[in-house]
Amino acid sequence: MNKINKKAQINNETGLGTNTTLSGGGRFFNRDGNPNMDVRGMNLWERLNIYHSLLTMSWFNFLTVVVIYFVTTNLLFTGIYFLIGIDHLGGLMEVTGIELFGEVFFFSAQTFTTVGYGRINPIGFAASFTASMEALTGLMTFAIATGIMWGRFSKPKAYIRYSKNAIIAPFRDGIALMFRMVPYTRNYLVNVEVRVTLAIHVEEDGQRKNRFYNMPLDIAKANTMTANWTLVHVINEESPIYGFTKDDLTNARAEILVFVQGFDESVSNTVVSRTSYTYEEFIFGAKFLPMYHPNEDGTKTVLHLDQLDAYESVTLPVK
Amino acid sequence: MNKINKKAQINNETGLGTNTTLSGGGRFFNRDGNPNMDVRGMNLWERLNIYHSLLTMSWFNFLTVVVIYFVTTNLLFTGIYFLIGIDHLGGLMEVTGIELFGEVFFFSAQTFTTVGYGRINPIGFAASFTASMEALTGLMTFAIATGIMWGRFSKPKAYIRYSKNAIIAPFRDGIALMFRMVPYTRNYLVNVEVRVTLAIHVEEDGQRKNRFYNMPLDIAKANTMTANWTLVHVINEESPIYGFTKDDLTNARAEILVFVQGFDESVSNTVVSRTSYTYEEFIFGAKFLPMYHPNEDGTKTVLHLDQLDAYESVTLPVK
Amino acid sequence: MNKINKKAQINNETGLGTNTTLSGGGRFFNRDGNPNMDVRGMNLWERLNIYHSLLTMSWFNFLTVVVIYFVTTNLLFTGIYFLIGIDHLGGLMEVTGIELFGEVFFFSAQTFTTVGYGRINPIGFAASFTASMEALTGLMTFAIATGIMWGRFSKPKAYIRYSKNAIIAPFRDGIALMFRMVPYTRNYLVNVEVRVTLAIHVEEDGQRKNRFYNMPLDIAKANTMTANWTLVHVINEESPIYGFTKDDLTNARAEILVFVQGFDESVSNTVVSRTSYTYEEFIFGAKFLPMYHPNEDGTKTVLHLDQLDAYESVTLPVK
Amino acid sequence: MNKINKKAQINNETGLGTNTTLSGGGRFFNRDGNPNMDVRGMNLWERLNIYHSLLTMSWFNFLTVVVIYFVTTNLLFTGIYFLIGIDHLGGLMEVTGIELFGEVFFFSAQTFTTVGYGRINPIGFAASFTASMEALTGLMTFAIATGIMWGRFSKPKAYIRYSKNAIIAPFRDGIALMFRMVPYTRNYLVNVEVRVTLAIHVEEDGQRKNRFYNMPLDIAKANTMTANWTLVHVINEESPIYGFTKDDLTNARAEILVFVQGFDESVSNTVVSRTSYTYEEFIFGAKFLPMYHPNEDGTKTVLHLDQLDAYESVTLPVK
Repeated sequence: MNKINKKAQINNETGLGTNTTLSGGGRFFNRDGNPNMDVRGMNLWERLNIYHSLLTMSWFNFLTVVVIYFVTTNLLFTGIYFLIGIDHLGGLMEVTGIELFGEVFFFSAQTFTTVGYGRINPIGFAASFTASMEALTGLMTFAIATGIMWGRFSKPKAYIRYSKNAIIAPFRDGIALMFRMVPYTRNYLVNVEVRVTLAIHVEEDGQRKNRFYNMPLDIAKANTMTANWTLVHVINEESPIYGFTKDDLTNARAEILVFVQGFDESVSNTVVSRTSYTYEEFIFGAKFLPMYHPNEDGTKTVLHLDQLDAYESVTLPVK
Repeated sequence: MNKINKKAQINNETGLGTNTTLSGGGRFFNRDGNPNMDVRGMNLWERLNIYHSLLTMSWFNFLTVVVIYFVTTNLLFTGIYFLIGIDHLGGLMEVTGIELFGEVFFFSAQTFTTVGYGRINPIGFAASFTASMEALTGLMTFAIATGIMWGRFSKPKAYIRYSKNAIIAPFRDGIALMFRMVPYTRNYLVNVEVRVTLAIHVEEDGQRKNRFYNMPLDIAKANTMTANWTLVHVINEESPIYGFTKDDLTNARAEILVFVQGFDESVSNTVVSRTSYTYEEFIFGAKFLPMYHPNEDGTKTVLHLDQLDAYESVTLPVK
Repeated sequence: MNKINKKAQINNETGLGTNTTLSGGGRFFNRDGNPNMDVRGMNLWERLNIYHSLLTMSWFNFLTVVVIYFVTTNLLFTGIYFLIGIDHLGGLMEVTGIELFGEVFFFSAQTFTTVGYGRINPIGFAASFTASMEALTGLMTFAIATGIMWGRFSKPKAYIRYSKNAIIAPFRDGIALMFRMVPYTRNYLVNVEVRVTLAIHVEEDGQRKNRFYNMPLDIAKANTMTANWTLVHVINEESPIYGFTKDDLTNARAEILVFVQGFDESVSNTVVSRTSYTYEEFIFGAKFLPMYHPNEDGTKTVLHLDQLDAYESVTLPVK
Repeated sequence: MNKINKKAQINNETGLGTNTTLSGGGRFFNRDGNPNMDVRGMNLWERLNIYHSLLTMSWFNFLTVVVIYFVTTNLLFTGIYFLIGIDHLGGLMEVTGIELFGEVFFFSAQTFTTVGYGRINPIGFAASFTASMEALTGLMTFAIATGIMWGRFSKPKAYIRYSKNAIIAPFRDGIALMFRMVPYTRNYLVNVEVRVTLAIHVEEDGQRKNRFYNMPLDIAKANTMTANWTLVHVINEESPIYGFTKDDLTNARAEILVFVQGFDESVSNTVVSRTSYTYEEFIFGAKFLPMYHPNEDGTKTVLHLDQLDAYESVTLPVK
């Protein structure tokens, strides 16, 4: 430890503070790029961003919420129709018990969804008023539902996959840390920028502290990302991990944070993506296998997405 | 007054003019970052941005507008059905008075919401035409309502909270003005930039004038803001308030305007946020208490949102 | 003519070509900032951007399109029901002529809007199939209508007004060309940038040509535009119109193109606005009157939108 | 080959790798700017971005998907109603066979679209429950359909056309590679930037490799693009194709990739557009004919879109 390269460029724009005393053994960021953090001290309701939750929950949960809301609202209106008195609903065929309840409940459902078959229909002011309010509620509800369904569908997202490992590979006369990524849908990104930050534990004044360093990339921008792209951090004298052995990286609990930003031309929106690799996901002495080759008649390039993680072991040059 | 540091960098990009003679005792910006300003000389109707109003009014007001619109439109169509003659509506059960009015009104509501039970239904050209126009109106209305509901839900917003006070704290060998902010939902901001401007009253040629200065920050950018972030303006020889005492700041009615801009990755949109602190919200001799610590087993960070405003008094170094 | 200042900075990024032989007496840009240009050589249908047209036409035209579409579609389906045979519609009360046509037409309308009262209803495969396709068509249509209504409402726009005239006013030791603008709704712009370009006719080699020059502004950026903002182009030795008299500007048919770009924080979107002033809209020897002052008790600023165009005549310094 | 100008600036931000061994005779990019590439190794389902597909398929395909979905869902619900037993549907007029099936199927359609005439209506819990779920499904479906229709309509896009050919034309004292583009709708772009990259085959160490070079443009930015714009790459000593003959370009299978980015002010969104020209689309010795001229009374400019591709042959200067 404390082997950190003095020439390395400290990154004090991580948003994680320069003096953080965070430590422990956990990773800073989860594999999905979100912080490995618990938030307390504000009740859930205040923190809840309903819109955001409805947008990001799974489809199964979302549909469950929809059905629960639908049943609950109809139960509520069913109760109101009973309070008003069922003699204010024309066309009922049942007179007692659960069958009657069912008829009123489904009259409510027919009103809420604005199907309105009409066999059962409201008679008199109170029932008619309730029915019109229920139809209005139904329409407003489906207005929101429409928006949320659309939001779920159209949520801009970077459709890229990252290689499972970051590798330490021979590069030019030395070595480099590499990982790669590939777009897997037809949403191509343009004006892509990648930033990599190293998070590392150092010992200062007998205390474990976190430090953050820039990991400059050989090429950090791409006009268009239509195929796989290998990001290369050359481990030279400017690198914060220059001279680090595997053990050094392990002791320092090294973690690299990857931030990708690009413009998705198919939806005309900027999207970002983040991930992280910890020292346990580094492979020493490896090189990535090619992912693409010309097709049979030489008129097209063929890209193999399933080769994203493929590497072979190689011997690193002795430095 | 007029102690203003000659080395300080005038900010003439505040959009508030360089020569403003605005004075009085009021603050420039409200706590929500909007200007403390009255606008006159254009009638409300011209200035009204209906869309913007419907988007930003409270949910209670919005629902009130919806209900009023709903009732008014139905009253209007009810009137038309009466003009046409109620013998052109089939299925009515009442023949006079308020009950009849109710039946026609709710027929209208059933048409407007497209429920269309059908017990009551239009007969003949005039009534049928009116009903079809009402259904069309209803559908167009709910088209707009859908959009607005969605707009209200999806309105991009920076979900951050600011500390109640800005503090003057010891920093390195001197002092600094600090405030902090924290994201309180899971909408993380990336590429965050913060700009702080000082608004101050100076006396020039025997006249009170407003001047604006940049307040450079120690760190003004963050790649990702996932936890609390303390913004630090070092009060050194470049600072516009270098050498100011508490009384000086009070006399000059100092106010700092804070502007935060970032990219909300969860909705892929740029968002901004503003706030301001006046001299009355400055605390002299304080330092913020930490907001986070490792969890029990050292695998995660725990962030306490309720500690955002927490500070303890400290003695400032004598300069 | 040909007095043009040699030191002035040619703007070759106007998108109007550097060598344009456009001339005639017309202005380059209309007052709304759109080019004063006719486009030919592609039929209207190809050039038509239906979405864009529906979004930008007046509300009156838009509603007319909706009603025409509604009536036409219903006429079409009415025709189909007659082809199938009206004995396949149950519940009709009329048997001949225009009344029968009316009943079928409004049955169609009830289906298209999904009101579906049900007195009249389809019997048999052909009529039922047609009705279900009509309901589907109706729903798809209202899906599009919903989107367009929303698009019309939410179309981001810079809510700013420009002063009617640009004025030549005394400024510091010399003179300047000025105009001003003001936001008139509560949609405040942040990160505002203004660019001004001069379009001017020059005579070269005995031929009239158009030339474009940058008009640098004293202050061209504003962090926030919450009140009126006077844009100032100092007519000094760098100015393309340095030394021009009123006659010179008239002969050269001088026109300034104004481009404003900002971020509307209330809708989190970048908006732009353009306008132009021709030599006929320049006022020589004037200065703008103030638009704001403190309120009665000195706690707020009062902004008078109706003072936007107000100026008083002044004598220009003799240079 | 290998004539490549040593002074030319290599572009290593193409996102296509610096060391690519891609070759064969195919073009890199199709005329629409998308990569000429096959993607394999991930099953279609994983790669499918349903939203993106529904947004970009033709209107015919989209409507086919809608109808198939509509029929399938109704068949499914028809099956359920038969399972429950048709005695739970009131108002049926047919008792057997295909006619009965038709009545149930269209009852389902009336429910799914929420028309709900009501002649046929559900009786009892099971049928009523199924009908209410069908109405709910219908509403959710049309919520999604609404969003997608809107997405298809509002998809931001650069409405520009490119000239069919790139030409090698006399320019100043030498020659230049030129192509032009024109906006063909009223969606004007502002802040337009154009980047051109040359992709070329070179022979290195006896192996064919691809190399990418920047093609600097005489003017690469435009404040506003309201008319045609000719992009000019001067073939001078800095150009990667300086000294190339037509045969050289053919042997090297030269291809230029064009990337245009701008801000569409009418929808307030950034849009991008790409295209490519291969050596087969280059015309040696040509110049573009003018596309615009003043109108009859000299008050407007007339732009002829059909002249976009028009050029005349000229003799290139002997260098």
